Order: sequence, then structure tokens, then C-alpha cells
Amino acid sequence: MKSYKEMSAEELKAEKASLEQKYEEYKAMALNLDMTRGKPGSDQLDLSNHIYDSLSSEGFKTRDGVDTRNYNTPAGITEMREVFAQILGTDANKIFLGNSSSLNQMFDSIMRAIVFGEHDSDKPWGQIEGKKWLCPVPGYDRHFRVTQTLGFELVNVPMTENGPDMDIVEELVKDEKVLGIWCIPVYSNPDGIVYSEDTCRRLASMKTAAKDFRIYWDNAYVVHHLTDNESEQGSVPDILGLCEEYGNPSRAYEFASSSKITFAGGGISCIAANKDNMDHAKKIMAVQTICNNKINQLAHARMLPDLDAVKAHMRKHAELLRPKFSKTLEILDSQLAWTGTANWHEPKGGYFVSIFVQKGTADKVVSMCKEAGVALTPAGATYPYGKDPDNSNIRIAPSFPSVEEIDTAVNVLCVCAKITAIDKILEEQ
Amino acid sequence: MKSYKEMSAEELKAEKASLEQKYEEYKAMALNLDMTRGKPGSDQLDLSNHIYDSLSSEGFKTRDGVDTRNYNTPAGITEMREVFAQILGTDANKIFLGNSSSLNQMFDSIMRAIVFGEHDSDKPWGQIEGKKWLCPVPGYDRHFRVTQTLGFELVNVPMTENGPDMDIVEELVKDEKVLGIWCIPVYSNPDGIVYSEDTCRRLASMKTAAKDFRIYWDNAYVVHHLTDNESEQGSVPDILGLCEEYGNPSRAYEFASSSKITFAGGGISCIAANKDNMDHAKKIMAVQTICNNKINQLAHARMLPDLDAVKAHMRKHAELLRPKFSKTLEILDSQLAWTGTANWHEPKGGYFVSIFVQKGTADKVVSMCKEAGVALTPAGATYPYGKDPDNSNIRIAPSFPSVEEIDTAVNVLCVCAKITAIDKILEEQ
Repeated sequence: MKSYKEMSAEELKAEKASLEQKYEEYKAMALNLDMTRGKPGSDQLDLSNHIYDSLSSEGFKTRDGVDTRNYNTPAGITEMREVFAQILGTDANKIFLGNSSSLNQMFDSIMRAIVFGEHDSDKPWGQIEGKKWLCPVPGYDRHFRVTQTLGFELVNVPMTENGPDMDIVEELVKDEKVLGIWCIPVYSNPDGIVYSEDTCRRLASMKTAAKDFRIYWDNAYVVHHLTDNESEQGSVPDILGLCEEYGNPSRAYEFASSSKITFAGGGISCIAANKDNMDHAKKIMAVQTICNNKINQLAHARMLPDLDAVKAHMRKHAELLRPKFSKTLEILDSQLAWTGTANWHEPKGGYFVSIFVQKGTADKVVSMCKEAGVALTPAGATYPYGKDPDNSNIRIAPSFPSVEEIDTAVNVLCVCAKITAIDKILEEQ
Repeated sequence: MKSYKEMSAEELKAEKASLEQKYEEYKAMALNLDMTRGKPGSDQLDLSNHIYDSLSSEGFKTRDGVDTRNYNTPAGITEMREVFAQILGTDANKIFLGNSSSLNQMFDSIMRAIVFGEHDSDKPWGQIEGKKWLCPVPGYDRHFRVTQTLGFELVNVPMTENGPDMDIVEELVKDEKVLGIWCIPVYSNPDGIVYSEDTCRRLASMKTAAKDFRIYWDNAYVVHHLTDNESEQGSVPDILGLCEEYGNPSRAYEFASSSKITFAGGGISCIAANKDNMDHAKKIMAVQTICNNKINQLAHARMLPDLDAVKAHMRKHAELLRPKFSKTLEILDSQLAWTGTANWHEPKGGYFVSIFVQKGTADKVVSMCKEAGVALTPAGATYPYGKDPDNSNIRIAPSFPSVEEIDTAVNVLCVCAKITAIDKILEEQ
């Protein structure tokens, strides 16, 4: 089949006419499909429904005899700290457990730096005019909104197949106003890219003008593989260890949560950091609260007592998610690939498929989908300030809808992407 | 019996000799008793052990069909917002539910004001040099530490039988650097004082130089009565309603939690505020997190579906706490009252008994108790900067130890208070 670039204007117009007919058919179906956010499906949540049963059968005490019902143990219970340490490949004493939201921990951590500075800062970050934050793009809108809201200028860094473009990062961090970078090292949101070891090493070792530069290492999808084939599963080195190895021991904060292991609205989050960072944070956190919810930690530790249990549990998630990702990719491959107007990654894990449609058309594609009853994340959402300079990236979240709904929704998306691509090509001829 | 003031020096010395013998006997017992913090006893926590059972039997959906396991509903589920609204005598739409710690909500709320200002501020509070916060004393050490850590100068306000001395408060708020006040209106920590309606009205109506002045109304013990006699139970008017009535609708943030209703380390907290304050806070909270743990909210709402259920549950707590408070007061009455060297309130609720020992001796009493194996909150802890100007107040927390342990611990305290009082009187003669 000819790609769109190879087609004549007449051929394109004929193709468009046929696509528009399909589009009108979809509109007539009065669809109401939502692929906006990376929410687990109900069937995935069902996998953990029994998590609280152990509380009535085994009680509320940890294996060390801590009564989780009462005030105490601010850093979290030992058994659950150990599980996260295994997940992240670090030591349990570097782990501090929060409530359900790791985003909350990231926000609070930067808030602390704004008001108090880091342990190695000359002054609170709030006093630094023109402070900047590096944002690999496309990336996670909620990350970007945190640093935007807290007063940073956001600086785009292009993603490569190996993570953020390190040549550019190494240049940018020569500016002492650049204080940090967002990273989702495993199955990045939205592209599903896994950082290479070289990228990780360069991040840990690079020379930064700001001595209190911080990597926010959001390991949100560290055990969230779509494939059972271990050799295909993404993994990265322990960033805390690497930073220490290169003489920058306080450079990274690492985050994770069980939001997409157990319950998106009721899991356990964690922050991992070296002793200096942790001592500094704990001093302030001890003023902020007496302790977090340890009962939920205990329920989690009993259901998922070690990394093997976590892996076995995540395989069940993968079984439920794989057909949804396969369906998405199958339709993109059959409907869109041959046109030569779009490209995408085939993620091996995580929660998203990220498509780059014809440059200059993403907003139009999303609004056409909306008109046909298919809600997508707004075009531009994956870029700082909601502005995709190429107006090209669209993030698809296939986890929540059913396979049937995905089938329809992605077909609608393909029709819209093709119509707008043709318009663009004709316009540019 | 003669009071200490009526005794001669010889009589005092004889009394002291006999007390010192008792003290040595206690020391020989190698006690290890802890009355430092207001922690519920295990028997109290047992009252809620069944709280999570409904999740397996009734599932995870709210009565409106919200799946509490997934991301959504940032303000919290309707049924639990309604319970807190009933507890606080306000509207459910003014309630935002947090995780377990209301202290965390207070800290975050002031952090927001520091970094962003209030909706009616001219600038973020962090930019105000010499900002001050009013601290009714004695008061709650964790409150004081929040505002101290966040850069306020703490200003003591004496407590009266009716709450903070309002003549003094009304004078102090003429200073535009005074931005707020801590209040525990029902069964204040540590004195167990209930604010009078007049105090509440004066707080709501007073003219403050700072237009963005805030009352932090920590209603921590609003349903925590020790007596079943309703006419003796403390209550205060709805502060949000009063502030609105007097034309200061944004003046108060109210806080509460189920920490001492269900689990101290795993309950539900709430913040209540008018629309302007809530909209302002929500804008920032929406950046901080997607949602809090709603599964725990659902478990709470099912166990405590309305105010009547809460009251019935709190009567069970009162049954367990009453003997502990009675024992404490009985020993103070029999051992200390006649000496004329100490006084205390008889709380009708809350978690503390607050004793004022002979001026200038509290630190000595606490250290003598410690030497005899009885841990008390450090002297001065109930005052800003840990400095009790009279060195007189000691906070006793009788909830956690058993009645037998309280019997011993309070007897030790009385012996130490008497010895130090005699020393002081002799020294001053």
C-alpha cells in the first residue's frame, strides 16, 4: 500500500472522503470512551481485594511487636520497608514509607527544599530567582505541574531511546539555576522507555553547577512489566548507589508506590534517600506528622512479603493488561503504520502508549476524537506548560477501558489521525 | 492537716525526711512507667478492630458507586464527609478528608500560606519578616513546633477558665505581624478547658490588623467526653458559622480526626473551611496529590455511619478512660491537695491532666520522676520554645498506662512534687 507521502492529491482526497464517512459513522454511535488517565482496571484492583483480611485473622502487630494501630514508627514498619528496598534494590534503612501517594511525597520534598533548602544548600530554594527544572519530554504532566506550581522555570529535554538526551542535560546543568530533573527511569511515562545504564551513570556522575542539584527518580513502574520474558523486562541500576559511587551521594531522591501494585487510591508510597538527605527530611517530617498509616503497611507486607511475591502478583496484572496493550498496538499497526504519518514505541511495561502523529495536528486529532466521544489526554499535556512544540504527541492510557472499548477508541483515533494528516499534507503541498 | 505554708521549718524538714524515704523506696522498685504522650490504650484500640471486616463482606464501593480502590474523589467520600460534618456541626461541602494525621493537614495548610499566601493575602507569608503566631499557654507542643519551624515568633497568651485571655488576644491582634492563633476549643491540651461561647464569639468578631489572620481551630477532642452526663459535656459553637456571622468568613480553618476515635496511627483526618479558603487550598492540593486513601474512609463510614454511632462508640472509650482519670485525680486530691502547693483542673474530656506545681520546680519534679523510672512530658513542653516562664506546669497523659501503673506513677509524682515544694519553700524563707 502507498504511504500518504507517496499518494497524489487525488488519491489523498479519495482516501479522506472514505475516512470521513467512517468518522461520521463513529459519531453516530454516540460513544463515551475514556483513555485519559493511567488508572488500573477493576479486574486489576480485584487482585488485591483480600488484602485487609489478615487484620482480623492475624491482628495488628508487626513481627517486631509494633502495634500499628497506635502512634509510633514514623519511617514505617520494618517488613514493608524491606519489601520496597528489595523492589528498588537498595537498603531498608534508606526507605521512608508514606501514605498512598508518591506524588505527595515528591511535592512535599520539593516544598521542603523551597522553604528550608536541602542539607547542602546555601539558602532555601524559594529565595533563588529564576530557578529551573529539567523536564525530559514527552513526560508526566503531574510532575511538570509540581515544579511549575512551586516556581521553577521548566526546561524541555528531548527523550531518546536511552532516556533523556544526556549531551543536552550535561550542558544545561552547567547553569547553577538548574536545580533538578524529573526522571521516570523504567517504562517512562508516556513512551515506555527504559534508561540505559550509561544514561544512569552519566546522571549520577555529571558535574552540576548547583551543588545541591537533585534527581527526582520516580521509579513508578519498576516492577510493572508487560512481558513475562525476563530478558525483555526493563531494569536500571540502583541510582542511590551510583550517586554514591561517583561522589555525589546526596544527588538523588527515589520514589515508588504500590498504587499500581495494589490499589491506586489506597496503596503505600515510599521515598528512598541517603542518610544526609533522609536526616534532613525527617527533621521536618517529624514536625509535620507523628506517623503515617501503618495498618495499611502491615496489610501490604502480609500480602506481598517479598520481591518474589510482588513479581508473582505483577504477573497477574500483566496478564490482564497485555490484551489491552496488544489490541492498541495491533490497531495502530494495521491502521496507521502504512500511512507513514505517525510513529510510536512498543512499550514492554508501564501504563501508556505514546503516539507521535503528523506534526502540527495532535490538538486537532484530540478534539476530533472528543467530538466522536473518545476522551484522550489533552494534546500538549505531556510537555511543560501543556505546550508540545511539535503539536504531535498523544498519550493513550489503555489500562482502564475494556479490550472492546479500546478496539473502538483506537480505531476512532486512527481515523482522526489520518484525516488530519491528509489535511496537513494537502495544505503543505 | 496543715498546708505546707502553715508548717514551720522543722515540720517541713520532718515531712521531707519521710518523703525522701518513700522516694528511695520507689527508686528501689526500678519502675519503668511512661505518661508522656496522649496515646490511646490497647483496650481502646480494640474497640475498632473489626473496622476493616466490611471491606470483604460489602466490597469497596461507596453508596454513590465510587470505587474507593482507584484514583478519584480528592475531597473524600460523601458518607465520611457527612460524618465529620455532623461531628463538627458544619456542612459536608466544607469538609476535605485527609489521611490519618490532622497535624499533617495543619502543617501543610500553613506551608501553603508560607509559599503561596492565603487567598486574601497581599503576599506569601514566607516574605513577611517578624511574623508572629499566638499560642495560648499551656498548650500543645506539636502545634507550637509547627509554627516555630515555619518561621513564626511565638507569642504566649495565658489561658483562663474560658479559653485564651481575650483581652490580651484582642490587643495582640492589633499588630499586623500577628497572623494566627492555635486553639483547641474543647478539652484543651493540656488543661481540658472548654472555650466559652463568649470567647468563641470574640475570636470570630475581633478586629485584626492582618486581613489574612487565621484561627487554627483544632477540634481534636470534640466528641471525647469522659462523662456520660450530657449537661456536663463540653461543646462550642460552629466556628466557621460564627466567623461568617461576624463578616470574617475566611478567618478559621477547623481540624479534626478519628485518631482517638478509631486508630491513633490509622484514622481519618479532616479540614473544614469556607469556600474561598477551600478553593484556594484545593488548587494547591490538586497539584500535591491525586487523592487520599478512600478505602479507609469507607471502612470508617461503615463502622461509624453517623453522629449517634460516633457518640455510642465514644461512650465505650469513656468507660475505659474514666477509671484512669479518676485514679489520677484521686491520688492528686489525697496526696497533693492538702499541701497547698499545687493545683489542677478536673477535665471532663480529652486526654490530659495538667498540674501546676510549686512555681520554679516543674523541671526538678520531672527529673526526679525520671530518676525513679516515671517518664513525664519534659517540663516546659506545654509552652513555646519549651520554656514555661513559671517553671510550674506538668502534663500527665493517663490514657496509655494501666490503672495500676497510674496509681504508682502519680504517687511518685506527688512525692517528687512535695519534696521539691518543701525545698523551694525552705529556700525562700
